[in-house]
Amino acid sequence: MNYFSSDFKLGILGGGQLGKMLLNDTRKFDIQTLVLDPSEEAPSRMSCNAFYRGNLNDFDTVYQFGKMCHVITIEIENVNLEALEKLEEEGHLVYPSPKTLRLIKNKGRQKDFYVENNIPTSKHQRFVDIKDLQNALDKDELDFPFVWKSAEGGYDGNGVKIVRSALDLYNLPEVECLAEALVPFKNELAVIVARNAKGDIKTYPVVEMEFHPEANQVEYVICPARIDKKVAEKARAVALNVSKAFNHVGLLAVEMFQTEDDEIVVNEVAPRPHNSGHYSIEASYTSQFENHIRAILNLPLGNTDSKVAGIMVNLVGEEGYTGQVVYENIEKIMAFDGVTPHIYGKRETRPFRKMGHVTIVNEDMAEARKIAEEVKNSIRVIS
Amino acid sequence: MNYFSSDFKLGILGGGQLGKMLLNDTRKFDIQTLVLDPSEEAPSRMSCNAFYRGNLNDFDTVYQFGKMCHVITIEIENVNLEALEKLEEEGHLVYPSPKTLRLIKNKGRQKDFYVENNIPTSKHQRFVDIKDLQNALDKDELDFPFVWKSAEGGYDGNGVKIVRSALDLYNLPEVECLAEALVPFKNELAVIVARNAKGDIKTYPVVEMEFHPEANQVEYVICPARIDKKVAEKARAVALNVSKAFNHVGLLAVEMFQTEDDEIVVNEVAPRPHNSGHYSIEASYTSQFENHIRAILNLPLGNTDSKVAGIMVNLVGEEGYTGQVVYENIEKIMAFDGVTPHIYGKRETRPFRKMGHVTIVNEDMAEARKIAEEVKNSIRVIS
Repeated sequence: MNYFSSDFKLGILGGGQLGKMLLNDTRKFDIQTLVLDPSEEAPSRMSCNAFYRGNLNDFDTVYQFGKMCHVITIEIENVNLEALEKLEEEGHLVYPSPKTLRLIKNKGRQKDFYVENNIPTSKHQRFVDIKDLQNALDKDELDFPFVWKSAEGGYDGNGVKIVRSALDLYNLPEVECLAEALVPFKNELAVIVARNAKGDIKTYPVVEMEFHPEANQVEYVICPARIDKKVAEKARAVALNVSKAFNHVGLLAVEMFQTEDDEIVVNEVAPRPHNSGHYSIEASYTSQFENHIRAILNLPLGNTDSKVAGIMVNLVGEEGYTGQVVYENIEKIMAFDGVTPHIYGKRETRPFRKMGHVTIVNEDMAEARKIAEEVKNSIRVIS
Repeated sequence: MNYFSSDFKLGILGGGQLGKMLLNDTRKFDIQTLVLDPSEEAPSRMSCNAFYRGNLNDFDTVYQFGKMCHVITIEIENVNLEALEKLEEEGHLVYPSPKTLRLIKNKGRQKDFYVENNIPTSKHQRFVDIKDLQNALDKDELDFPFVWKSAEGGYDGNGVKIVRSALDLYNLPEVECLAEALVPFKNELAVIVARNAKGDIKTYPVVEMEFHPEANQVEYVICPARIDKKVAEKARAVALNVSKAFNHVGLLAVEMFQTEDDEIVVNEVAPRPHNSGHYSIEASYTSQFENHIRAILNLPLGNTDSKVAGIMVNLVGEEGYTGQVVYENIEKIMAFDGVTPHIYGKRETRPFRKMGHVTIVNEDMAEARKIAEEVKNSIRVIS
């Protein structure tokens, strides 16, 4: 199929910042793109050939949108899967496959899948609701402490709670859930895997999330992770296996833990470009976004190696500020070496809203880390 | 001034591929952009906030367009300068300045400027027309051989002719012209200089144009140039002086020759992003396009160093093909290491039309050069 300056059409469900950055790389290939998003002010709106406003969870909306596209992909998982299934049946290429999206959607089923496929993951038990979980505790089939997770719908820390005693169960929502063993870990890692329909497969280097020493919040995504080479190789091997097990086409971001005894356990996956891969725009030979496009169009995958060390800092709205956004000290950080701000194009800031990110690249990781800290301490997202 | 996610508006005169790539970098800063171009199908059309179709040489069109913008820049020099002058008088920021555009427009005046500012350049004589030049020959005030240049309007090899005898004068157009000394040179080089209104100034590394051994055509733009370090330093110093002499704001691409005895002589300049800087998207810490934006918005300049070696190959329409473009073997070259195609988005190819370019990056220059040759020999722009 001829994708370049042709009548080929790629459809993207979701028009947020991931879509915006994905579209950026469609421009250099001159691929026609259609975007569906509920918001009139979606960051993706400007860089696509045609923008459609509509509900991503409505069968007809997604189905009619998909009918116009040769290949359909997503930048957000929460979309109408029945419509995607029907489109796939009718011969449209849908990547990631609706089957995988359905499997991933329920965290209990996702964990079962890892167990069935011999993918290392922490022990888990599934419960239809909190009463079911309570019963298991009563019968000593479940012990404190554990990690409670809502089976569906949680993200960015929502729907997850560490439960150390019965007190922590108080006020948990009445939804299907799971309990996972609380694994003491040294590091939170992620590996992005790119795989095309031919089965060509490549992993990006392992990245490390560095947390704020007090607040339990990721401060920096660091590539490559400052970990032992053998652990890194193990993490990449595990991630490869996860992508193969799903028979995945496109990007798969595999989040995992490095345990105290240097084992790798898979936490969860995202079947699309991922926050942990934003560093790749500046640091990698081929950005995660370009490789997602290459993968879903069954083109050869680009080199996933890094040219230089990369660190990513998220720009989130500061507490106490809501309204027309101002990026305080952005000019100051732009004077630092190897610093590129990415402003997503949301006019209104509010507390903790993801407004952009900043990438810091440098030949020398220690230097990059130093500059990243200056960036973090300088810039403020206020109104 | 706050440029990021604000009401600030940047206007760009011209909507070709340079504008398209420039706009790409405005997206990550979320800067509002307006584009004026005569073609309904301008490559820039998709990535700007507002597209206006109009004649770039019409006073009213350019003036009315400029009135809507806080800062105005160009991606093509051939625009109505009177309108830009009036806009500048009225307080709009116009970069490059209309004064510089006027000075550069006439190659005779441009050469005079170099002489006045002690910038090394080949000897030249100006003539009002070809008869005036003929008189100089008759009076022995001019000798063969020399390079004839049309004073205005020529580009990409048009309006330039090597004149070795009276026979070569036959059929030259009746226009203002100049005769330049024919300087034997080893290499054709270029240096891009970025300078902001504060006067911060940085040069990119020297690039080298490698010509086809038989056809007199640039095949590869190579960064860094494979030349002696001292010559490279001299070239960068000369380019810095040229930018300062113009008091230039924005990018200035300085084209020059390395003579047989390792002198640097300036040939001509382009006051904007330039074909010789396309490699920078993949190879540099900061692309030429991002630095043009930083410069004209008086932001701190980004690092102009390279992460890796970069080679650029232009994709031009093959002779004998006109119509809906096909990029033959594009999938093949995408399988090579470090290869990124940039397709400009022109649907119709015709002989020698600039349709795109391909960048090859690699840690090792020799390896990049080998892959560049494979790219050049594989890809064909046909219909």
